[in-house]
Amino acid sequence: MNTQKSLLADRYTPLIRNCWYVLGFAAEADRQLRSRNIAGIAVVYFRRLDGSIAVLRDRCPHRSFPLSKGILDGDRLTCLYHGLTFDPDGLCVAKPTNPDNAAEIRAGSFPVVERQGVIWIWPGDPKLADEAEIPELPWLDQPGWDHVSGYLNFPSNYIALHENLMDLSHFAFLHAGNIGTPEYADAPFRVRVEDGRINLRRVLEDSPLPSLLSVPTDLGDKRVTRETDTWWMSPALNLTHSNVHDSTPDAGKPGLYSFKVIHFITPETQHTTHNFWAVARDFRLDDPAIPAHTHASFKVAFEEDREALDWIEQRQRREGLEFGEVHLSSDKGGILMRRRMKKLALAEAERPPSSS
Amino acid sequence: MNTQKSLLADRYTPLIRNCWYVLGFAAEADRQLRSRNIAGIAVVYFRRLDGSIAVLRDRCPHRSFPLSKGILDGDRLTCLYHGLTFDPDGLCVAKPTNPDNAAEIRAGSFPVVERQGVIWIWPGDPKLADEAEIPELPWLDQPGWDHVSGYLNFPSNYIALHENLMDLSHFAFLHAGNIGTPEYADAPFRVRVEDGRINLRRVLEDSPLPSLLSVPTDLGDKRVTRETDTWWMSPALNLTHSNVHDSTPDAGKPGLYSFKVIHFITPETQHTTHNFWAVARDFRLDDPAIPAHTHASFKVAFEEDREALDWIEQRQRREGLEFGEVHLSSDKGGILMRRRMKKLALAEAERPPSSS
Amino acid sequence: MNTQKSLLADRYTPLIRNCWYVLGFAAEADRQLRSRNIAGIAVVYFRRLDGSIAVLRDRCPHRSFPLSKGILDGDRLTCLYHGLTFDPDGLCVAKPTNPDNAAEIRAGSFPVVERQGVIWIWPGDPKLADEAEIPELPWLDQPGWDHVSGYLNFPSNYIALHENLMDLSHFAFLHAGNIGTPEYADAPFRVRVEDGRINLRRVLEDSPLPSLLSVPTDLGDKRVTRETDTWWMSPALNLTHSNVHDSTPDAGKPGLYSFKVIHFITPETQHTTHNFWAVARDFRLDDPAIPAHTHASFKVAFEEDREALDWIEQRQRREGLEFGEVHLSSDKGGILMRRRMKKLALAEAERPPSSS
Repeated sequence: MNTQKSLLADRYTPLIRNCWYVLGFAAEADRQLRSRNIAGIAVVYFRRLDGSIAVLRDRCPHRSFPLSKGILDGDRLTCLYHGLTFDPDGLCVAKPTNPDNAAEIRAGSFPVVERQGVIWIWPGDPKLADEAEIPELPWLDQPGWDHVSGYLNFPSNYIALHENLMDLSHFAFLHAGNIGTPEYADAPFRVRVEDGRINLRRVLEDSPLPSLLSVPTDLGDKRVTRETDTWWMSPALNLTHSNVHDSTPDAGKPGLYSFKVIHFITPETQHTTHNFWAVARDFRLDDPAIPAHTHASFKVAFEEDREALDWIEQRQRREGLEFGEVHLSSDKGGILMRRRMKKLALAEAERPPSSS
Repeated sequence: MNTQKSLLADRYTPLIRNCWYVLGFAAEADRQLRSRNIAGIAVVYFRRLDGSIAVLRDRCPHRSFPLSKGILDGDRLTCLYHGLTFDPDGLCVAKPTNPDNAAEIRAGSFPVVERQGVIWIWPGDPKLADEAEIPELPWLDQPGWDHVSGYLNFPSNYIALHENLMDLSHFAFLHAGNIGTPEYADAPFRVRVEDGRINLRRVLEDSPLPSLLSVPTDLGDKRVTRETDTWWMSPALNLTHSNVHDSTPDAGKPGLYSFKVIHFITPETQHTTHNFWAVARDFRLDDPAIPAHTHASFKVAFEEDREALDWIEQRQRREGLEFGEVHLSSDKGGILMRRRMKKLALAEAERPPSSS
Repeated sequence: MNTQKSLLADRYTPLIRNCWYVLGFAAEADRQLRSRNIAGIAVVYFRRLDGSIAVLRDRCPHRSFPLSKGILDGDRLTCLYHGLTFDPDGLCVAKPTNPDNAAEIRAGSFPVVERQGVIWIWPGDPKLADEAEIPELPWLDQPGWDHVSGYLNFPSNYIALHENLMDLSHFAFLHAGNIGTPEYADAPFRVRVEDGRINLRRVLEDSPLPSLLSVPTDLGDKRVTRETDTWWMSPALNLTHSNVHDSTPDAGKPGLYSFKVIHFITPETQHTTHNFWAVARDFRLDDPAIPAHTHASFKVAFEEDREALDWIEQRQRREGLEFGEVHLSSDKGGILMRRRMKKLALAEAERPPSSS
């Protein structure tokens, strides 16, 4: 199967901005001015005195000085170059040397929502931002669940990371030492689209777990059923429901162990990507050893992904994309995702930005 | 006020070459072959046996080998690759292996003038070089004046440094710790053009001096009048006359203290700039502590400028210039300068180079 | 003499791929997967179980993962990303998760010949590869000869290295301390073309040898005749026959000493070059001190070339090529070479790749 390159998003496709992306974990935001690149735009963020988060463009509209190098006084941010002062909505409220200048000056500001320990921002056209589109992730803050989290910076375009997560047959090879087992590559899978989301489902029956799952569940080498449901939710999120079914549980042990593997994928620049991740579980919540084990073992697997995508990015950068990829049936989820991302990017490029 | 981008020079505007630029301080030039990039052209310079300075293109016209890696013998410079030898005017006077080759071969040479401790060169069309256009800077070598000097390399286009110097309202913010005082940003200013030069004048009355001026004048926190006259002289020079008037001087002390702040601005490449600077004064010439204090304190301020322009350059490089700058009335001097620089650059691009 | 730039190959001319290039010394190839860039293409190579060498494109045709990061099992190479397995001819023989996929998938493979201690590959259109075009270099493996060899990576385009070797008048300047003598630059030379190969011949009579030749021959400062025949053989090879004639040999000493200086020139990328080199001799074969002296002294000269070409490349990269080179009669060999290389590159660009 060869699909026309022009229908599929790749590393050169313009970054999608009309989307709720994770800016960072909420715990990071405080009264310090912090700067981060989101979809190619530098933003500065901080908490207002009332505790809510403000996000402005990190570039003074006057002479492009980074506002994150300025001074926060109360809720007002003063540019350190010529002293223009902005309120947390981006309106310029003081212009030294130019007190009579009546023109309204604005630093760009961004819709922002703090929810379940995560900060979401909308770097695109603010008129299109609808909070109802922010996905609910109850496993990050509801009773009955615990999670670990972390951050990796990928030296590659975000499409490559999405694609990596939409073909889990790579578990058996790239992650042979941790999340993969030989049987995993051959387990049957199914791909379907539901409400614009893309689902990849793989069920592996009667098989032992890899150490990354067998240790926290304490199932050892018992043969169980492993059900993996991966969802491409949006350009910003890949969510995997991983269920382990033990049909003959020992006394006092559950028959179902649930993991949620959450990848917040935020393009930083055209060729680098923020990956905020979390892994939640619903069992053995009071065992203090499990979070450290889960954090360490998933991190090893995610770093293997990062190294792999770095190598691929280097090949593509040096030799170009004319190479012509071969597609397999196991690429179906990734192909659907890349087609969808391409459509979104093209639609965004065609839409005139709403006047603000 | 929004001015059409196309009328204003920016970091992408071709470098102006038809101008006398400072190559370096005269003290640097000796019998060593030294190389420096001036407006995107590598030049090699050295002193002839008679003490005068020769400046050649640092690229052999044969196979582009840097002549600065060659050998100086008397006044002749031999390329280390194939042995072509040039006189200090750039004429090839020896061609090993090709003794019968009668063609005249020339390495480019540049008009050069040594004056007041500074080396000026004209990297553009030599036919247009007129020594009368080199500005006189008597404070650098006349009795009654003393000065300190230094060098900084800016990782930014030269327009940004010129613009920085044409809106001194930034003193109160970027240089709050040294040359700026809170009152400075609100002092009235006036911009005018005279003989193609652009003047920004700001007078601050009845105000204490910043430490950078109060220490050398020994005026402490006395309230005085501070008069700042900044001149954009050419793409190569910004000159500030800074006068401190004390209307009630103590016995034996002057009523006027004069500083001259001289910025030689020489584009190195499209995105880096040489900044040779000097600060002269006409008082307390025999106090040995003043030069060290003045050198150190001005250097701190200049390094703050360099860091600021580096940050701005990074923003502009990453995000482009489509951003759309907002202009204020305090930008008037900078806008006039950028309009002028744009015109000079365009005129130069249109003129056919004179045949040489 | 000014030759139209468009007729001469330069650093921007597309790399010639339809040519036998040296991939490396045969001693390097073993059961490890090794990666190298040849004419802009990353290749992976290893020895099959039968000892022969296989060369594949180092990029999985599926998702561009470098095959050199994979696993070699017997003669089969498995990609570490999704487990596609290739035989040493590049045919995909296993597709985990896609066992029913009948499509033929191929990783590119390259014609390869191991001969005289050297691995030759053809990175271009395999249909055009003819082993008969691989030059014979008997001095590398026949009795009566001994040689030393080495490798340098040049931070410059391969044209510059070919040109360096086609004008040996630079010996007297760039290599004044080792291979050059003052008389060398003025010795008469002759350039001719024979069977598409370009020959530069220079004979220096009645002159002492430089140390690089006088030490191994043990001729001291005796005046002898030195005959240098340099051949541009192909884009991949420069071969120099250097003969020293002693018309009055001491008892028991030869009248002729022969050196072969072999430069395998393999473009790595557009602006970097592999230089595998060898220096063979036909005398004093049992003196154990000579190889070390020859290796060390030639290496010094070759490193001088590398530094020179690095400087030139930097000038050209910064300032462009519009500079306009001056050509001398001593450039005749280089000019013929550059014209030839330009023609080969253009012909290759025009030819449609044969369907494979």
